[in-house]
Amino acid sequence: MDERTGLPVVGMIGAGQLARMTHQAAIPLGQSLRLLADSPDDGAALVAADVEVGDFRELADLRRFARGCDVVTFDHEHVPNEHIAALEADGVAVHPGSAALRYAQDKLAMRERLSAMGVPGPRWAPVATRADLERFGARVGWPLVLKAATGGYDGKGVWVVDTADDAADVLAAGVRLLAEEKAPIARELAAVIARSPFGQGAAWPVVETVQRDGICVEVLAPAPDLDEDVAEQAQALALRIAAELGVTGVLAVELFETRDGLLVNELAMRPHNSAHWTIEGARTSQFEQHLRAVLDYPLGAPTPTAPVTVMANLLGGADDVVPKGIDERVHHSMARWPDVKIHLYGKQLRPGRKVGHVTALGVDLATVRGRARAAADYLMHGDLNSDANAAGA
Amino acid sequence: MDERTGLPVVGMIGAGQLARMTHQAAIPLGQSLRLLADSPDDGAALVAADVEVGDFRELADLRRFARGCDVVTFDHEHVPNEHIAALEADGVAVHPGSAALRYAQDKLAMRERLSAMGVPGPRWAPVATRADLERFGARVGWPLVLKAATGGYDGKGVWVVDTADDAADVLAAGVRLLAEEKAPIARELAAVIARSPFGQGAAWPVVETVQRDGICVEVLAPAPDLDEDVAEQAQALALRIAAELGVTGVLAVELFETRDGLLVNELAMRPHNSAHWTIEGARTSQFEQHLRAVLDYPLGAPTPTAPVTVMANLLGGADDVVPKGIDERVHHSMARWPDVKIHLYGKQLRPGRKVGHVTALGVDLATVRGRARAAADYLMHGDLNSDANAAGA
Repeated sequence: MDERTGLPVVGMIGAGQLARMTHQAAIPLGQSLRLLADSPDDGAALVAADVEVGDFRELADLRRFARGCDVVTFDHEHVPNEHIAALEADGVAVHPGSAALRYAQDKLAMRERLSAMGVPGPRWAPVATRADLERFGARVGWPLVLKAATGGYDGKGVWVVDTADDAADVLAAGVRLLAEEKAPIARELAAVIARSPFGQGAAWPVVETVQRDGICVEVLAPAPDLDEDVAEQAQALALRIAAELGVTGVLAVELFETRDGLLVNELAMRPHNSAHWTIEGARTSQFEQHLRAVLDYPLGAPTPTAPVTVMANLLGGADDVVPKGIDERVHHSMARWPDVKIHLYGKQLRPGRKVGHVTALGVDLATVRGRARAAADYLMHGDLNSDANAAGA
Repeated sequence: MDERTGLPVVGMIGAGQLARMTHQAAIPLGQSLRLLADSPDDGAALVAADVEVGDFRELADLRRFARGCDVVTFDHEHVPNEHIAALEADGVAVHPGSAALRYAQDKLAMRERLSAMGVPGPRWAPVATRADLERFGARVGWPLVLKAATGGYDGKGVWVVDTADDAADVLAAGVRLLAEEKAPIARELAAVIARSPFGQGAAWPVVETVQRDGICVEVLAPAPDLDEDVAEQAQALALRIAAELGVTGVLAVELFETRDGLLVNELAMRPHNSAHWTIEGARTSQFEQHLRAVLDYPLGAPTPTAPVTVMANLLGGADDVVPKGIDERVHHSMARWPDVKIHLYGKQLRPGRKVGHVTALGVDLATVRGRARAAADYLMHGDLNSDANAAGA
């Protein structure tokens, strides 16, 4: 309890862009997010008042940090599960808890559990040896997808292999692996929901996530032309997974849409890139909702604020525009697209790194998407012709 | 320039709720607002990373603060004008500048200037003696309004007097005074606009401000049933005042609507209570727009996001619910009004003090207003019957 405000203190482990945007959402709730940062230059540490620098892999650092918090939550899923369990044993309120978070940290555990629940997913098998992989490939066909059970994100730790030979290096690396069939995907969707410890759930509209090289580049909300029954099925699936796994906070269920129905791809138990559009596009953003959920407050209305919202990620290219030159590009971008909302994360640019996103809202998908795409391309690559390109896409 | 982000640094003098909400708007722009706070417990100081404690009345403190800023702006108008001019002479970019800000700091200067511009206002006169007041009263009739030229806000420094006798104490206090006729007011309006140093202007829809005891309690956006020509006239008036006075940043023009047309009541050159509704109710909030303006960025679209937005202030009553008890009331309020947005300023409660506001959006004014009113009453007074009361209001 913060005696100055009379409100409980939420601590977030990790101080990247998710923490930065959660702090932004904390301010109107009378809160000030407390952060455990890797460095004082982390995106969220640049904007928050209550920052402790420490190592999320060290239980002593986590314990020291938790002492100042009424609730502890996460910016990422890399905190060792046994440390989270140790905090819980200390009596710390941690949301999501270790028992749930395990399924976002370990893809093998997730596949086992979802299969046991009868949740549809690609066919999969644990793989330790070349023989395991060949057996699985013979069953589901090649190419197939090899995944590290732990530690991957944004396409890292995921390999598409055509033959067992292609997998030799990965198999030799000694990490726990699983193989999944390469399902015939029509497109990728995400069902994002929140669940409170009390058990209340709230679902945003199901979105389409547009991927390039395994990284999300755009989110279209709601998913265009999605069958209403399929949308409801996706929301119900996400709410059921949250309830059965005991998830608290935001849960993002990444889905494949196939001719034969939906398949669960991944789970994330934190605010997620696929719901950044909710900052402007929904009455309650995922960041506010995550705070409400971990505080066990009643959840806010997830109602959309516009017929169509499109979010485009700002992904670093080969050039070095951030920090040098970004201010000028922000100027031009604001002049050209006065209704597009810019979100910068306070991060240095590296090729492929997410340094921000833009959001456009409106009625016509092609127009809205064209504006978001053009603004994102201009901010990252200075490409003034992107408007026309995007409009034709 | 912040070398970590490549973006200019905005410093705000004062760390109250306007600074708090400006910091919130600064985060997506890649910024982190730098603050000169009176105390580390100020509402904005609780949530921002870059806070200096100092005295805004001391030029040395202002100079030290300005050294870390590319642009300096204000949370309030109490910084001595000569100190602002001194910073400008030092080469600091200050927005709004001293020449413009003078007209928000000194009501006599404002009346003189607006009269010279031919801007409609109540009849007025400088008043130093009882004889001055009696002469003015004989001309415009009693009761009339007596105002301190400097230092007033939220009804402070304003007196309605029926006779010269009523004004004896005020006249004796030795402050510079002006008298204004008590115009026959149908209602109060506000035209809020922003203007950049480049000269770009952008106007939000004109709103109705509902006052109680000289304090704004509600804002209805747009002003219900306002004649379109009158609305345009109000916006044009505000843009003209900003251009002629050289205002940079947000300008709020408080207006009286009378049978004979609009009269200018007050000017404020900073984000203003009458535009808090823009956080959710407009594509660009007044806080983001103020930052864009003082940075000389192109302005954002002031387009409304919903047909009707109502903001209700959270004003402390006689009881002491903040900080004690506010958390429980936030719970109940969120459960009952999941679509109403709560904004808490991190302030201790005092009777009559603004400690936050709520915003409701929708289509039907009576419904939206009822929900905002009920949520505000419940948060401040625990009044569960207010729903019905407000619906009948």
